Amino acid sequence: MANRKYAIGVDFGTASGRAVLVDVSNGKELSTAIYKYSHSVIDEALPVEGKPVRLEPDWALQDPDDYIRTFKRTIPAVLRESGVSPEDVIGLGIDFTACTMLPTLADGTPLCVLPDYRRNPHSWVKLWKHHAAQSQADKINATARKMNEDWLNRYGGKISSEWFFSKTLQILEEAPEIYNAADRLLEAADWVVWQLTGVECRNSCTAGYKAMWSKREGFPQDNYFAALDPRLEHVIDQKMSRQIVPIGNRAGGLTAQAAKWTGLRPGTAVAVANVDAHVSVPAATVTEPGRMVAIMGTSTCHMILGPTERLVPGICGYVEDGIIPGLFGFEAGQSGVGDIFAWFVDNAVPPEYHNAAKKQKKDLHALLEKEAAQLKPGESGLLALDWWNGNRSVLVDVDLNGLLLGATLATKAPEIYRALIEATAFGTRTIIEAFDKNGVPVNELVTCGGLPEKNKLLMQIYADITGRELKVTASKQTPALGSAMFGTVAAGKSEGGYDTIFEAAPNMARLKKETFKPNPLAQRVYNQIYADYSTLHDYFGRGVNDVMKRMKQIRGDCRNR
Amino acid sequence: MANRKYAIGVDFGTASGRAVLVDVSNGKELSTAIYKYSHSVIDEALPVEGKPVRLEPDWALQDPDDYIRTFKRTIPAVLRESGVSPEDVIGLGIDFTACTMLPTLADGTPLCVLPDYRRNPHSWVKLWKHHAAQSQADKINATARKMNEDWLNRYGGKISSEWFFSKTLQILEEAPEIYNAADRLLEAADWVVWQLTGVECRNSCTAGYKAMWSKREGFPQDNYFAALDPRLEHVIDQKMSRQIVPIGNRAGGLTAQAAKWTGLRPGTAVAVANVDAHVSVPAATVTEPGRMVAIMGTSTCHMILGPTERLVPGICGYVEDGIIPGLFGFEAGQSGVGDIFAWFVDNAVPPEYHNAAKKQKKDLHALLEKEAAQLKPGESGLLALDWWNGNRSVLVDVDLNGLLLGATLATKAPEIYRALIEATAFGTRTIIEAFDKNGVPVNELVTCGGLPEKNKLLMQIYADITGRELKVTASKQTPALGSAMFGTVAAGKSEGGYDTIFEAAPNMARLKKETFKPNPLAQRVYNQIYADYSTLHDYFGRGVNDVMKRMKQIRGDCRNR
Repeated sequence: MANRKYAIGVDFGTASGRAVLVDVSNGKELSTAIYKYSHSVIDEALPVEGKPVRLEPDWALQDPDDYIRTFKRTIPAVLRESGVSPEDVIGLGIDFTACTMLPTLADGTPLCVLPDYRRNPHSWVKLWKHHAAQSQADKINATARKMNEDWLNRYGGKISSEWFFSKTLQILEEAPEIYNAADRLLEAADWVVWQLTGVECRNSCTAGYKAMWSKREGFPQDNYFAALDPRLEHVIDQKMSRQIVPIGNRAGGLTAQAAKWTGLRPGTAVAVANVDAHVSVPAATVTEPGRMVAIMGTSTCHMILGPTERLVPGICGYVEDGIIPGLFGFEAGQSGVGDIFAWFVDNAVPPEYHNAAKKQKKDLHALLEKEAAQLKPGESGLLALDWWNGNRSVLVDVDLNGLLLGATLATKAPEIYRALIEATAFGTRTIIEAFDKNGVPVNELVTCGGLPEKNKLLMQIYADITGRELKVTASKQTPALGSAMFGTVAAGKSEGGYDTIFEAAPNMARLKKETFKPNPLAQRVYNQIYADYSTLHDYFGRGVNDVMKRMKQIRGDCRNR
Repeated sequence: MANRKYAIGVDFGTASGRAVLVDVSNGKELSTAIYKYSHSVIDEALPVEGKPVRLEPDWALQDPDDYIRTFKRTIPAVLRESGVSPEDVIGLGIDFTACTMLPTLADGTPLCVLPDYRRNPHSWVKLWKHHAAQSQADKINATARKMNEDWLNRYGGKISSEWFFSKTLQILEEAPEIYNAADRLLEAADWVVWQLTGVECRNSCTAGYKAMWSKREGFPQDNYFAALDPRLEHVIDQKMSRQIVPIGNRAGGLTAQAAKWTGLRPGTAVAVANVDAHVSVPAATVTEPGRMVAIMGTSTCHMILGPTERLVPGICGYVEDGIIPGLFGFEAGQSGVGDIFAWFVDNAVPPEYHNAAKKQKKDLHALLEKEAAQLKPGESGLLALDWWNGNRSVLVDVDLNGLLLGATLATKAPEIYRALIEATAFGTRTIIEAFDKNGVPVNELVTCGGLPEKNKLLMQIYADITGRELKVTASKQTPALGSAMFGTVAAGKSEGGYDTIFEAAPNMARLKKETFKPNPLAQRVYNQIYADYSTLHDYFGRGVNDVMKRMKQIRGDCRNR
């Protein structure tokens, strides 16, 4: 035991942060601690004193102090619980939601902690699901198309409103005083590493996937930014950095202050920041092409590796070395998955099922899953489009919304629940087919996140609808494990870790034995229904009938009437 | 008071029958009694002893004994409650759901009471909403089109699966032994009048609207029926009657037995049977063109009078003298209205609203109405197609089903409730426009039935969406009042009644003072949304995308797998 070494991974999620302490030799998780952010997602009013500052619809902010509190609460807790000595912790890695970004002073102080800016919503952290920058994204896309910017193709032809420069441009347009006051604009992922190490170190993963950067070409040219807005011309040099550090590197060592926060020794190796989804790939045993990793929770992120550059329309993007060094990392996503089921359970299930769940001492999801599992594929007669939270891939359109078709007077809640699961599976199949058709083959799915743990019916439906075998990671905290793995690589073999992620993965990552294989009869029925899903997907999603956008527009107009 | 005369109307609904006793001079309702059918709608298994006889999906039957029990329970009750002497009751009228039909022996004995046939579902009363005869309706339509049968145009080009010969052909095809055993096939409306008077008297309203009969041409020719099925060639002469009696006539006098059931004097005038919807027209003060009567309950029936014959595609039909003598009565309908709201309240509203309703001592509909009334038109962002129970007009297609579009993670139950109300109003507008465009102008709407009483938000939404002023009948029992009015006409002036319905209506029928006028701002928004409703209506309803039918087909296949 004396020679055993440990690493810690900290995963910053949407509502909480969690730390996991793992054994470097085998990836075994010794202890876990969670901190629920005190302000969670700020989407109604700023948490400030005095007159309330209300937020517009589609806004989603966070408080950077919640991230520091995550370190202070969780790392001492995992040390305590495991009994591991800080001397034996060789490395620390973090992963974050993205693009989650904030404006700071040159020393890293977030603008939102300064009295002058605290009541301005634009000074706060814009969370990944902040959806109020669509008009800026539209401008970014239109300008790039007009200027024939090649980099646009890397992102499936469309930049999302969730991404870095959409949010940056929104700050500039709506709060130029915040833009001017910001010495730095950066990902929260890089900001927390800065707080740990004292080093402003920008990671290649968020730069590549969210900020239009590539290893070969860097950022778009200044003249492109100037075309967006003359004040943006020098945004890279003025507020960002052209020095992008590849993932797998060491960002620095823990400062004395951060050592005090966490109980770790000063100088402990800290890895370059990573994104929660991407860091999960090696933690899901995947370091080679052909095996898609799907992180399925409130939303789903799909990642797949390829040896060569490929243009896949409608995917989120691909980044060389973005996930695993030496390979192109392709990313796609569904903006609403578990969130849709949660919406349904909270908003559309009658009391009889709530009462039955209580009586059976079951979670309501589990009860609905059990009832929905009694149904055969197609038996509900329902077909849904899984766009309750817009569509990320392959349509890249936050203005789309949910559709349910086929309801009768006999339709029951478990039928709708199943149709919503099926809809998200059809959405995943649409993404898989986009990759497959464009030279990035998808042979199997390795899943992680909350949903595969909780819902076996969902897993079987996904296997039946995608026609792929589904596997599940053994770890329940895949991103945190992945971060810890990168922590061992930051430390390196000399300190008892690994020199590359290729060495770390086979030792530290594992899959469960149970897998989900497609059932041929179910596949046949779902193939029929998928044809109709695709027709509706294109009809409502590709501009044949823009009714969803018109309804959203009218809804917006109402609020201003 | 000694000279005052009274009439009784009995209205046979879907779940109950109700009698109203009214003052002939002014239509004042002195007493009401309701009988809830002991077997209500039989849609799961026959109410027979021994091994259960389960029904297929889409079946809906009734027990004819429930109708006789209605007379026995309600008429004595209204006499008792009002204190009116049977001597002063000059007439009795009845109205019924339609097409609600049954097979009987030559003496009127229903086949379902005979031990030989009681366990055969086809021997029972087929209720209007029995929807299992679609393939027969398809055959009736295809054959009529092939033979260029002119009468098909009177029914908007399509016969419904709910109608008389669809149900008749289903009996013949699926239970030839029942068809053979039936000496008579007739509407339950005419059957109850037969039970009261001993006279088999077939009314012009159901014959015209449900059995392809017209005053000028009679029934379709025997060769048409032979083309449907050789065994059906002589159905009219063998099982029905060519002698159709116009509404407003006297069917006969009460038999001694019926007098004993009811407590009325033998010989009391009994009117020719009528349909619940159609009998409501004069009871809603309408005896002239231009004013549409909408009976809004679980489903909605729209009736409008016109001076001349007009072909209106997709309406249920028109019958000369079918509603008011001397005029063409046009009918259209929506097969699900209140039923859709009831489905929603029972199946898709979470506990918080149930609890709030309980706390506020409100009906859940009333609570949702209150919350939905806070929203502006279009504010929900939702758009629905009101086809939870198929579409009667103008698509005439039971295989269509419901659609909800525009849901987001922020969508709440009152928003969906409002969208469903709006959807049914768009459905009504579609019907109004079909009439308007085809030479049957609709200037205002006179409403009756359960919904206008209960839901003011709904009334305002209907006014805003249709762009018409909405009025409401003063009576809460419009069909029963209409039946009583026809009872006074059956008695005639000589017995203290009226000679025509034109004389009875102004004396006995009244509207409420409160009306609902369109709000121009709401109209403008709803006009925009209606354009989208119409696009989706035609896309899903007119064969551009038959996904709803395919989903229903797959659902049906599941049940057989």
